[in-house]
Amino acid sequence: MDLLKNRILADGQALNENVLKVDSFINHQVDPKLMDVIGKEFAEHYRNKNVTKVVTIESSGIAPATFTALYLDVPLIILKKCSSKTLADDVFQTKVTSFTKNIEYDLTLSKNYVNDNDNVLVIDDFLANGEASFGAINLIKMANANIAGIGILIEKSFQKGYERLVDAGYDVYSLARISKLSDGKIEFLN
Amino acid sequence: MDLLKNRILADGQALNENVLKVDSFINHQVDPKLMDVIGKEFAEHYRNKNVTKVVTIESSGIAPATFTALYLDVPLIILKKCSSKTLADDVFQTKVTSFTKNIEYDLTLSKNYVNDNDNVLVIDDFLANGEASFGAINLIKMANANIAGIGILIEKSFQKGYERLVDAGYDVYSLARISKLSDGKIEFLN
Repeated sequence: MDLLKNRILADGQALNENVLKVDSFINHQVDPKLMDVIGKEFAEHYRNKNVTKVVTIESSGIAPATFTALYLDVPLIILKKCSSKTLADDVFQTKVTSFTKNIEYDLTLSKNYVNDNDNVLVIDDFLANGEASFGAINLIKMANANIAGIGILIEKSFQKGYERLVDAGYDVYSLARISKLSDGKIEFLN
Repeated sequence: MDLLKNRILADGQALNENVLKVDSFINHQVDPKLMDVIGKEFAEHYRNKNVTKVVTIESSGIAPATFTALYLDVPLIILKKCSSKTLADDVFQTKVTSFTKNIEYDLTLSKNYVNDNDNVLVIDDFLANGEASFGAINLIKMANANIAGIGILIEKSFQKGYERLVDAGYDVYSLARISKLSDGKIEFLN
């Protein structure tokens, strides 16, 4: 998606060979118009897949996932990284390790909102090793639902996530595929 | 706002006199059409306030705040509850206590995205004691920006937050003002 790739080139910062900072338009400051266009793009791509729910992981995926759900006319479900008082009962949980942030968390899904009739589209901001995506997939499988696809804003194609997801049979659609990061330089796969 | 109040009556659950569960359409499962309408409502209400940025706190406020920012045609800024590797430098931080969740966290704002030219609208899902709102206000003040107003989806009017904010001179607009919660019963102020 040229709009996103050009924005990454203009406003993204390659801090080193692993970390791309997109805090000025995706992660911390958010461009709502860009999120709107991205949501439309995902909705178009998965239009014929009979998606019944969009799922994302808090919190950077929420903005684009909300627009995706709006344009697909289905509910959004936000997977929580911490258990809270009002989410204590009747939940599925799975452990996820974030290598980027060097933390481990319990990803949580209420048993009330995904079931065996659902066909779920997962939307996330980054795909690196695929840990977060597989965490979401685990929860959706625990609910006996089908996975319609995985929509990603920025894929670090030099890491294993894309390959792992495709090898597992999932329909992955990444809007920007980054082949290489180095100090101050960002290269795309295509 | 009748649409939100009716939805709270239909799908909200008063767990006790303090906790209102809205996990089925705001906090965990999200109704994107409702968020769209709420965003439009906030944008209309603050249309003449010359808002330059919308600020929210991760993560339940992100969906309605994204639409608010879209309709006001300004960027959204998501205040982070945890510091991450790529947010380590050049940040404002303030401690916030959540009595509902019984946790304390460092609310974080990058110094890059709010400055003394900004007029900031704060959007959040719940207003209880006002701890989260005052946390956001503290960060915006550290950046020497002005606060245009505080837009709230659900106000627990029986707690101190609204009074504290209005006493401090802020323009608070709550879409649903709850006067009383009890087991299974929800009453509105007006």
